[in-house]
Amino acid sequence: MTEIEDRKVGAARAARLDAVFAALADPTRRAIIDRLSRGEARVTEVAEPFSISLNAVSKHIRVLEASGVIERHRKGRDHILSINTRSLDEVDGWIERTRRYWEGRLDAMERVAHELRKHDSR
Amino acid sequence: MTEIEDRKVGAARAARLDAVFAALADPTRRAIIDRLSRGEARVTEVAEPFSISLNAVSKHIRVLEASGVIERHRKGRDHILSINTRSLDEVDGWIERTRRYWEGRLDAMERVAHELRKHDSR
Repeated sequence: MTEIEDRKVGAARAARLDAVFAALADPTRRAIIDRLSRGEARVTEVAEPFSISLNAVSKHIRVLEASGVIERHRKGRDHILSINTRSLDEVDGWIERTRRYWEGRLDAMERVAHELRKHDSR
Repeated sequence: MTEIEDRKVGAARAARLDAVFAALADPTRRAIIDRLSRGEARVTEVAEPFSISLNAVSKHIRVLEASGVIERHRKGRDHILSINTRSLDEVDGWIERTRRYWEGRLDAMERVAHELRKHDSR
């Protein structure tokens, strides 16, 4: 891959992460994902438990689709929604990389604290 | 815990998740976290690699602090920034719960596909 291509891939991934994080920054959208995490469902089934209008739920669903977090396919006359776990993998990967350094540090601090306590109790 | 308290805790957690996801939905803010994931740093050190103004970086830092993703403490005249890994744990926990169902389903589908292929090759 050339450097320019490499930068394009990086920019595309950054844009995807922007969209996924922004999509998840809303309690109604997270509730929709919670529902779909128990199994795929029709749009009307997803909308049913919410007190907001079907139109308002549909807007949230479109944000989730645009971010790639959920997918839609047709089964006859029904529109079926399901989670695209790959988009969550990408987010998870990012958090994992960020956290690794700190976990190592906290482990080391815990070991030091443990040693100090042993000395204290002698 | 009473039901009302339970709802308050739920609402507080939802508000925290909203703030964390919104904070992470920006490439500059994720780059700041990347920098801090390699170790705590002064505000000026964090700002240095960016082509935007110190003032613009400071705004991003304040968004990250308000969401609880990063923390600030003073060491003499310096303001030191570090990641608060607990906020990322909460996000990670949410993603994990959401994904578990689907992973189970994908595993089951893979087993079925594997069995069908064995039958085919007989």
